[in-house]
Amino acid sequence: MPLVRVELGVRGYPIHIGAGLLDRAALYAPHAAGRRVAIVTNTVVGPLYLARLERALAAAGASTMAVSVEDGERAKRWEVLDQVVDALLAHRFGRDALIAALGGGVVGDLAGFAAAVYQRGIAFLQVPTTLLAQVDASVGGKTAINHARGKNMIGAFHQPQAVIADVSVLATLPERELRAGIAEVIKHALALDAEFTAWLEAHLGRLLAREPEVLEYAVARCCELKARVVAEDEREAGVRAVLNFGHTFGHAIETATGYGAWLHGEAVGAGMVAAAELSVRMGALAPADCARVRSLVARAGLPLALPALGVARYLELMQVDKKAGGGRMRFVLLDRIGQARLRDDVPEPLVRETLAALVR
Amino acid sequence: MPLVRVELGVRGYPIHIGAGLLDRAALYAPHAAGRRVAIVTNTVVGPLYLARLERALAAAGASTMAVSVEDGERAKRWEVLDQVVDALLAHRFGRDALIAALGGGVVGDLAGFAAAVYQRGIAFLQVPTTLLAQVDASVGGKTAINHARGKNMIGAFHQPQAVIADVSVLATLPERELRAGIAEVIKHALALDAEFTAWLEAHLGRLLAREPEVLEYAVARCCELKARVVAEDEREAGVRAVLNFGHTFGHAIETATGYGAWLHGEAVGAGMVAAAELSVRMGALAPADCARVRSLVARAGLPLALPALGVARYLELMQVDKKAGGGRMRFVLLDRIGQARLRDDVPEPLVRETLAALVR
Repeated sequence: MPLVRVELGVRGYPIHIGAGLLDRAALYAPHAAGRRVAIVTNTVVGPLYLARLERALAAAGASTMAVSVEDGERAKRWEVLDQVVDALLAHRFGRDALIAALGGGVVGDLAGFAAAVYQRGIAFLQVPTTLLAQVDASVGGKTAINHARGKNMIGAFHQPQAVIADVSVLATLPERELRAGIAEVIKHALALDAEFTAWLEAHLGRLLAREPEVLEYAVARCCELKARVVAEDEREAGVRAVLNFGHTFGHAIETATGYGAWLHGEAVGAGMVAAAELSVRMGALAPADCARVRSLVARAGLPLALPALGVARYLELMQVDKKAGGGRMRFVLLDRIGQARLRDDVPEPLVRETLAALVR
Repeated sequence: MPLVRVELGVRGYPIHIGAGLLDRAALYAPHAAGRRVAIVTNTVVGPLYLARLERALAAAGASTMAVSVEDGERAKRWEVLDQVVDALLAHRFGRDALIAALGGGVVGDLAGFAAAVYQRGIAFLQVPTTLLAQVDASVGGKTAINHARGKNMIGAFHQPQAVIADVSVLATLPERELRAGIAEVIKHALALDAEFTAWLEAHLGRLLAREPEVLEYAVARCCELKARVVAEDEREAGVRAVLNFGHTFGHAIETATGYGAWLHGEAVGAGMVAAAELSVRMGALAPADCARVRSLVARAGLPLALPALGVARYLELMQVDKKAGGGRMRFVLLDRIGQARLRDDVPEPLVRETLAALVR
């Protein structure tokens, strides 16, 4: 069973990856024994996996309470966060309590942010149940809720105590969610690892078919890549920004279309194509490599075109993106497959051209 | 001009204390030069001091924007936090922006929490304008908003870049606010420093008369005491809890009466009397020393009695206080003047007796 460690000194933690881990009490015991645990899940994941997690935590010596929130990106808002806080207060949870996030990226971001701010910060565990959360969202301590003016604009860096990624739960994942998760797998490969990109090109069919060993390898490799970057730059002062490859365009799509119309991974898919095209226009990426990006995104069944919003609206949204320093636009672009770089030297006309070419 | 340093490694910072510092551009320059600064203030403090702070920041090379929120404890709620976040997003402030909190403890807690969560955390400056904020709230990085079920239940530890405490602005402080601030001066003395307690007993009249040298000494001494405790225990895992002397009863009063009916310092005043009485009942504090506590609180014009809520309601509220571990009640009690200690061994009947004796 793969074990990846995020090396962050006192805030370091293990990521356990494998089939059947959800029920493994021994994995929870070091963090949950003798403690009160609030499981935050949603109305889709709860009916499938909550009872199993409750049993495992009880076997690990914890007393549990569950809060179920609505499904979907819209749950990343204040009222839902308050619902979680209210449940914890109603049950008199103190600073020694633990939150366990059981669900996808939305549940992880919401529950993680609740843990970051409840009584000025309590511990939490990530139990990701989507591919996207297992390969990306559950690792690295980014937590947040959304604001009408931008995605993830209110949040915190708050590292979990551990991540427990059971790949067998991916069997129940809707096809569309699987493809959205593969977008983040592609992102890790393109931004950081040429060899992994080649592996992905060769194994994409088997990944889409959810072959357990292929899933396990993809999750483990992404976690290794991400753990390395996060260890180097926990608070995204520098290199960690490369993990936002495809996200500047992607966040603009999500914000403009209203959270939830596009899945995050779908927006990142189209965003990676846009970023690759922009990389070509900057003279950084070879057109043949851009074609590889398009092909991977297309084979994963993700959108290639951007929704028709008008170039001006995209520019407006991208200037308020967190990666924008002092109102300037910043983009993570590819120098080659497996090597992304944060750039603030992109002339606006090239951004306009790219948008005009890709808006459907 | 006194300068106190909070020693927290990379998160360490200076506290500047003196008359006329508000206008001293050189104090802001190291943090604000070349940056965009959002000044968060309120409708009472803004008209008095905002223009001066704007001028000083401009002279320090910053470009400024101001957000004015409502006055009073009720501002520590989500809707007002969102108002601050919305203004920053509307002005396209990025992660390199700075928030300056100009006001009392409420503004500092709210603006500090906004800085803690805006785009997962940006820098902030404390420019406290009340005695309470200068001696206590602006130092140590505690930020929060309130929840209907309890005070400061949603927050973060987020240290400022610097604290700039201009004691001359205390000239415009309403009498009631001055007295509320003195409650926290008394708290620092009683919890940590017998000699400072004796000084306070000797100088209380001159402090109430707002003699500048006396104010400056009191602020500086409190900041020294607090900085030492915070450096030792930033996240209140242990010794920092002594700074909550009077706060377990005090928070219960504030929550039960609705935020704002009692000023925080008034609740702490009555709370310290209750904690001292409970200390006597525990056999820890000499009755003569308890009389000194009562006398100081009374001479500062602070309430001695608790509002008539019923003993059961107090017990309920105190069990959900953050200092309560796993639902047990914890109290910071005095072993003697100048020495407080967190205790979880207080029999409930003694708490009931104390409440029954003090409820008016």
